Amino acid sequence: MQLSSEQLKAFDDKGYVFLPNCFAEEEIALLRIEGEQILKADRQEVWREKTGAPRTAFAAHTFSEVFRLLVSHPRLVGPLRQYFSEDVYVHQFKLNAKAAFEGDVWQWHQDYGTWARDDGMPEPRAMNISVFLDEVMPINGPLMFIPGSHKSGVLPAGHDEGTTSYPLWTLDHDTISRLVDAAGIVAPTGKPGGVLMFHGNLVHASTANITPYPRKIVYLTLCAVSNHIRKPTRPEWIAHRDFTPIEPVADDALVQYARSHRMAAE
Amino acid sequence: MQLSSEQLKAFDDKGYVFLPNCFAEEEIALLRIEGEQILKADRQEVWREKTGAPRTAFAAHTFSEVFRLLVSHPRLVGPLRQYFSEDVYVHQFKLNAKAAFEGDVWQWHQDYGTWARDDGMPEPRAMNISVFLDEVMPINGPLMFIPGSHKSGVLPAGHDEGTTSYPLWTLDHDTISRLVDAAGIVAPTGKPGGVLMFHGNLVHASTANITPYPRKIVYLTLCAVSNHIRKPTRPEWIAHRDFTPIEPVADDALVQYARSHRMAAE
Repeated sequence: MQLSSEQLKAFDDKGYVFLPNCFAEEEIALLRIEGEQILKADRQEVWREKTGAPRTAFAAHTFSEVFRLLVSHPRLVGPLRQYFSEDVYVHQFKLNAKAAFEGDVWQWHQDYGTWARDDGMPEPRAMNISVFLDEVMPINGPLMFIPGSHKSGVLPAGHDEGTTSYPLWTLDHDTISRLVDAAGIVAPTGKPGGVLMFHGNLVHASTANITPYPRKIVYLTLCAVSNHIRKPTRPEWIAHRDFTPIEPVADDALVQYARSHRMAAE
Repeated sequence: MQLSSEQLKAFDDKGYVFLPNCFAEEEIALLRIEGEQILKADRQEVWREKTGAPRTAFAAHTFSEVFRLLVSHPRLVGPLRQYFSEDVYVHQFKLNAKAAFEGDVWQWHQDYGTWARDDGMPEPRAMNISVFLDEVMPINGPLMFIPGSHKSGVLPAGHDEGTTSYPLWTLDHDTISRLVDAAGIVAPTGKPGGVLMFHGNLVHASTANITPYPRKIVYLTLCAVSNHIRKPTRPEWIAHRDFTPIEPVADDALVQYARSHRMAAE
């Protein structure tokens, strides 16, 4: 799959592009069931909220065939190879639960700020891809973006280790107010199967989820191979050291997997 | 002002009625400026979030002429006298700040549960009136209602003293899931000046506000005089003991006040 010239222009202008219905319900059902199993697991890659509810599962593509197929999917890898004009590898994989009732805040931040400071990534030649496994609604903690904020480069940030269970380089209130005054906030919502691709410097956040509606999203960071990280400080399962170019799987790989494993409606 | 028969039917069915543009910008500007002053004050009626940001100002109608005019306003008092077929008094006044960046969660609860347990209010013959002083948006912590949940009566609740700075009788996750499965969630939004009237047993909550947009709402609880509280346990400025019927002011009282105090655009 490739992005259209309109989508590429919108990406350069706003810092994100939204692809509704990128994955079909049969594919998403497979990912959702697998994701729920992984979030229950007691392993170092699964982090929890202060309440004990699951917050994030890292690196699931390294131990789950289903998520290996997702990160190698041509609908995700194709646009990124197109955009970067080179091969890409998996820099980070996160399944963020934003669990019903207990999903906590992610404060305002830029991802590339962390990749640069903590991982030694040379340039923002990596992109976030979020795949909606549940419906993302205005009320269950959608991603909020400040459009165009990726043009600001890497903004000064402070290391917040207190707000939630996950340490993050976050931006201060004055910076956020200034950016929002200029451009507002958007919070793209949609059915499971929607995909948001956004720039590593796009300023984003999400609020708490106190509804009974879970809001699981896979966040996949694919990085241009030439831009691989130079000075990793985080564990290998948070910032990967395997820079092997992704070899895309067949477009129907998830469907075939679901059917062969009889995980569809039986 | 009186509610139409359609509005009364909607209230009985859903548990709430929304009146957009109930107050004009000139009136709301007066309330907003006065509210911001009060939220800065260092007094026992002003409670703060764990971060120090203002959370709630109680009883402002007892020390602010502007808010005395609001609680006595015929656009609020008229519909409640109509609904209860008797005079009403002020049971509680709250100005909830839901401050930009720092406004915290209010967990799922019914207000009448608290009025009954903590104040000895005999019946749910009191109503909440929320007056939007800022724009209420999907992203800045709008009130969320479970439509029709007021028909459940008083649901079992636990006393939550930990989640935020304000102790609250909150409902458990199973109860909320069951109610939401049946009826979903609505989150009415709108411009400053909108008014939401909702039943004392309507289940509601609001999430954190991490945007730069403040979301100040006045919550006024007017109670039928015959239904006055019998066993107050909370301070007088939280659950009032003055059961004097409200005498409505003139419909233009806020406008006249604003003009005579030159608080409009000068």
